[in-house]
Amino acid sequence: MKVLRFEPADARFERSPGQDADIFAANLADQQQGGPVTVGYGRYGPNQVLKTNIVVDDVMVVLEERVSVEADGETLTAGPGEIIYMPKGNAVVLRSHAEGALTAYVTYPHWSEAE
Amino acid sequence: MKVLRFEPADARFERSPGQDADIFAANLADQQQGGPVTVGYGRYGPNQVLKTNIVVDDVMVVLEERVSVEADGETLTAGPGEIIYMPKGNAVVLRSHAEGALTAYVTYPHWSEAE
Repeated sequence: MKVLRFEPADARFERSPGQDADIFAANLADQQQGGPVTVGYGRYGPNQVLKTNIVVDDVMVVLEERVSVEADGETLTAGPGEIIYMPKGNAVVLRSHAEGALTAYVTYPHWSEAE
Repeated sequence: MKVLRFEPADARFERSPGQDADIFAANLADQQQGGPVTVGYGRYGPNQVLKTNIVVDDVMVVLEERVSVEADGETLTAGPGEIIYMPKGNAVVLRSHAEGALTAYVTYPHWSEAE
């Protein structure tokens, strides 16, 4: 498998299955390329809320604005250049703020096979 | 394993073993936490060059400035918010530019066990 380069302009954002918030994901590498990890970008509209169970190890790097993650009664907020690592098995509430957000993500294994 | 938040100020950068360029890595989650992926930050001094063999799937998200990766005679350059995915098995040359660079990385499996 070759070295690949991605940028947000490559992303074709789609609403994740099973949720109706304005939270969109765009895989740029996943099971189709044959590697072990999924790589992509996430886009959050303003003030969105998503309760979800984390079924794969999911690392989110915030690129623009902020995302908050509530888990076990604690809320962690990340801004540009900050990372939230959501290990498999956590129940989380993801929240964007008034400005929305742009993130990059890496999951192991492939989230779209696990959900 | 709990949800974790990281920022560059958490990073304790160390020169990667077996190289003497001003290129430093700081794992913030790795085999010690028990998850399948390593998460960390990379810092590149100005105009550094590192030839290396990629022994794990390695996803680099550029946070500040630019990094170029040469592989198979082709050079890919990424700036802030852009991603370079280096699958296992590639021989690459990493290069920073005059401004140095800051990156986030996710590897599967743990790079420090594989090297």
